[in-house]
Amino acid sequence: MSTYIDSLNWRYATKKFDNSKKVSESDLEVLLEATALSASSYGLQPYEILVIKDTELRLKLQQAAWGQVQTTQASHLIVLANKESFGEELVDDYLKNVSKTRGIAPEDLTGYADFMKSKLMTLTDGEKTIWTARQAYIALGNLLSAAADMKIDTCPMEGFDSEQFNEILNLKEKGLNAAVLVAIGYRSEEDETQHYKKVRKPKENLITHL
Amino acid sequence: MSTYIDSLNWRYATKKFDNSKKVSESDLEVLLEATALSASSYGLQPYEILVIKDTELRLKLQQAAWGQVQTTQASHLIVLANKESFGEELVDDYLKNVSKTRGIAPEDLTGYADFMKSKLMTLTDGEKTIWTARQAYIALGNLLSAAADMKIDTCPMEGFDSEQFNEILNLKEKGLNAAVLVAIGYRSEEDETQHYKKVRKPKENLITHL
Repeated sequence: MSTYIDSLNWRYATKKFDNSKKVSESDLEVLLEATALSASSYGLQPYEILVIKDTELRLKLQQAAWGQVQTTQASHLIVLANKESFGEELVDDYLKNVSKTRGIAPEDLTGYADFMKSKLMTLTDGEKTIWTARQAYIALGNLLSAAADMKIDTCPMEGFDSEQFNEILNLKEKGLNAAVLVAIGYRSEEDETQHYKKVRKPKENLITHL
Repeated sequence: MSTYIDSLNWRYATKKFDNSKKVSESDLEVLLEATALSASSYGLQPYEILVIKDTELRLKLQQAAWGQVQTTQASHLIVLANKESFGEELVDDYLKNVSKTRGIAPEDLTGYADFMKSKLMTLTDGEKTIWTARQAYIALGNLLSAAADMKIDTCPMEGFDSEQFNEILNLKEKGLNAAVLVAIGYRSEEDETQHYKKVRKPKENLITHL
């Protein structure tokens, strides 16, 4: 069995997917389960995950992603969409869930609710968006590693018009914003980039021990 | 051997570390190797990783992190510091590395260099900071999962004064900004929170299939 490091070395940003190979429903479920288990600040998960299989929809999205073929050639296109803003309901909904999951009386969570709200409600809308997008990127990091562990190929993509994505996917009305895309599937044998040697910063330029 | 999902379920934001247990040098090396293998936009890795063991330094940092004990009780404190801004050298240094690693003549990378620069150099300083921090958060997501795979406990932390961290760690002069912290080590048996049931959004509120 391959190790975590082996999986990361196997992983690369797939340029050409084999359109004939699809991620099975059961594998997709495990991958999404892993992604849903990602850490987030206070556990609030201030984002949603869209999993797009529909061909016509993906053809539209491809045009809003500079025509990049991974959007349509991959098995599925995943959109991580962060909350543009939020009110106290973000905390309240979470604590209702905590109360239910852990069997704690809601009134015993009031202090924690107040603490979280005191931290989060003073943020400006701009700061909220930055913060929720960062949480989505934790999920992205975890999703890429989980997929690699399952030998599912991925291509994370930031090159797209988020305004157009938001419109096509009706995200604005849900208070969401397309933060980042991940095409998932299986690499084509013809994708030459899979053979390229991985390029990483020399350790001495990346890591400092103090 | 436990699966990726098992590891994620085992993981939690550790509140109390066992101060007597240290992450070994060899495990630390593997964890950092995994983190260094994180994906980043264009592969540019626009951040640095500080690994802090020094007790006195951590006592200073603790005061800049609202006194949170994980900063000093954990085996090591990791700071992911994103580049506040960057110029063309970010792309040039990366492509020198590509040239060397893959044995490609620098002049054959000019087109790619121009493409990347056309995308990145038009960003404002504010946009650059947001973008580099997001890349650091991909590394964060991967680091947390890698640690869980190795049964190393973690506590990701956003609650700290980044200005004070930047000053204590002399980050400003390197053009860096403390984006997020991760305390790593081993959970104390006394940490009751390890027994709390994990709280996650119901799938229907998190995931949409299209």
